[in-house]
Amino acid sequence: MAKSRLPGEFELIARYFAPLSEGFEGAYGLRDDVAVMTPGSGKQVVAKTDAIVAGVHFLPDDPAGLVAQKALRVNLSDLAAKGAVPLCYMLDLILPSETTEEWVAAFAAGLARDQETFGVHLIGGDTNATPGALTVAIALLGEIDHNQTLRRGGARPGDVIFVTGTVGDAALGLVALLGELGEIDPAKADWLIGRYRLPVPRVGVGPQLTNLATASIDISDGLIADLGHVCEVSGLSADVEVARVPFSAAARTAINTDRALLEAALTGGDDYEILFTAPEEETDGIEQLSRRSSVPITAIGRMRKAPTETQERVILRDSSGQPMKILRDGWQHFQG
Amino acid sequence: MAKSRLPGEFELIARYFAPLSEGFEGAYGLRDDVAVMTPGSGKQVVAKTDAIVAGVHFLPDDPAGLVAQKALRVNLSDLAAKGAVPLCYMLDLILPSETTEEWVAAFAAGLARDQETFGVHLIGGDTNATPGALTVAIALLGEIDHNQTLRRGGARPGDVIFVTGTVGDAALGLVALLGELGEIDPAKADWLIGRYRLPVPRVGVGPQLTNLATASIDISDGLIADLGHVCEVSGLSADVEVARVPFSAAARTAINTDRALLEAALTGGDDYEILFTAPEEETDGIEQLSRRSSVPITAIGRMRKAPTETQERVILRDSSGQPMKILRDGWQHFQG
Repeated sequence: MAKSRLPGEFELIARYFAPLSEGFEGAYGLRDDVAVMTPGSGKQVVAKTDAIVAGVHFLPDDPAGLVAQKALRVNLSDLAAKGAVPLCYMLDLILPSETTEEWVAAFAAGLARDQETFGVHLIGGDTNATPGALTVAIALLGEIDHNQTLRRGGARPGDVIFVTGTVGDAALGLVALLGELGEIDPAKADWLIGRYRLPVPRVGVGPQLTNLATASIDISDGLIADLGHVCEVSGLSADVEVARVPFSAAARTAINTDRALLEAALTGGDDYEILFTAPEEETDGIEQLSRRSSVPITAIGRMRKAPTETQERVILRDSSGQPMKILRDGWQHFQG
Repeated sequence: MAKSRLPGEFELIARYFAPLSEGFEGAYGLRDDVAVMTPGSGKQVVAKTDAIVAGVHFLPDDPAGLVAQKALRVNLSDLAAKGAVPLCYMLDLILPSETTEEWVAAFAAGLARDQETFGVHLIGGDTNATPGALTVAIALLGEIDHNQTLRRGGARPGDVIFVTGTVGDAALGLVALLGELGEIDPAKADWLIGRYRLPVPRVGVGPQLTNLATASIDISDGLIADLGHVCEVSGLSADVEVARVPFSAAARTAINTDRALLEAALTGGDDYEILFTAPEEETDGIEQLSRRSSVPITAIGRMRKAPTETQERVILRDSSGQPMKILRDGWQHFQG
């Protein structure tokens, strides 16, 4: 089928993006220069932006709808981990000249699916040409009760460390995508790849953590790195019992075939689960939340007082309590 | 001098961007995953995003500080034209591998200068690598009294059309940059180039227009195109008296040497002046605002009822009232 060239910016907006603003009055149908939002009474606005770049965060031939959903979900995940309810977002879509109208249509359809799932609306944005790589920047806005935002820095010594869902699937999915997973049931490999390509932000859990958690972060850089961020800002260290870290059946199978994949699972990014700390006495409330939301929440360790200068902030312990050595510290997307 | 390679993302943020968040509590020193803002009592949040791309919106060897200021100012201009007061912004900075730390330092210094000038703070963002072109996306947030946002669609037949400052300088500055301005005093050419490179958003005027103007837009696509947007959404047409359009001394000199430049001045984008409509009885208030803010505001025409299908929405008239023909309709940045 012949691919059509892109129509002009105004056409593109009218055809594919303006429909995504329907139902949000302050978006003005994307026919004005700004958008207006009104947080509820007593609420604060919570804001986050994250961009993804072809060849860096996704593969240039990844399905456009998945690219759109991933771009939105990485931001939804941050708001969720902070306890905020997402409302609306702005989009900067930066397209190389070879982009087809079919690509844009599939991209917009991906956004439409996630708007339905997560209850958010597109309220503004910008499409631009680039001589370089396709880039998607999303700025997400939400709301939260005054002073309820969950921070990285609120953990206290003795707090239990919890994670939602399972850890490491996305990292192992990427290994599978690269064809380096070895002998594993193809259905399990596909499931891991799906977890890498389409993370599930925990928007149902996050806003219910504000009265339970002391600190919270989403796992985007990797379990160890993100727990390290919480430790650093809270001025603490953390003990993690590796045997308690929740792995999916597929991840466990992969790790059993190749022990080196344990490291990938513990340090790899893109899980977009929530890692949070809470006092032990909140355990009941957290178990209830887990049942109510049908999202597994697992205790994996405990916060400790600040480490000495020679100690690691995050200490992994095996089942006999002995420290384990892990090589990498997590992803750094940005390398000079 | 040897250029240093870029440090990692965390270093880059700590060294150059975290200082730009100082003084804005909800930015959490850029040490958390989201930012929080609290609009004033009775206010709504006004949001806008715009991205600029090297090789499309600026030249790859433009000074980094100017690139930063331009990226911020195109967004400030939109909020100003809508009557909103800017408060804070998020930044997605997408850098090719050859970017130097010196470039980032100069970029951040440019932001710092404009934060001082316009009273805004950086509250969050993201730096990413790209195999492609350097790209800067800014999402700007501000506030406005409830239902006071100036729209494109509020103009009424008989309203006077006003513009702030002077029109066409940026377009002629770009012509000068391309070496096609012909015989003109180099100081005047430089002044025009400066207007192209560093627009001055009318943040002092915009928020004072909310009680005077019926519709408003900033001139980013060109006087005729942007007035066309107001006409379209308002369902009206417009008469512009070309002899009343305010040109700077430098622009007038350029146009006098080459009449074709009149078209460039009327259709070229990037002026970032405010074009607004207001009932004739507000003329006194507008003159007072002009004096108070030391920004020239000039009446250039009048809104008329909707055109017939064969008529142009924006009709340029010469000093005898005869329609003039202009070829181009304004910029379209985005070409498929």
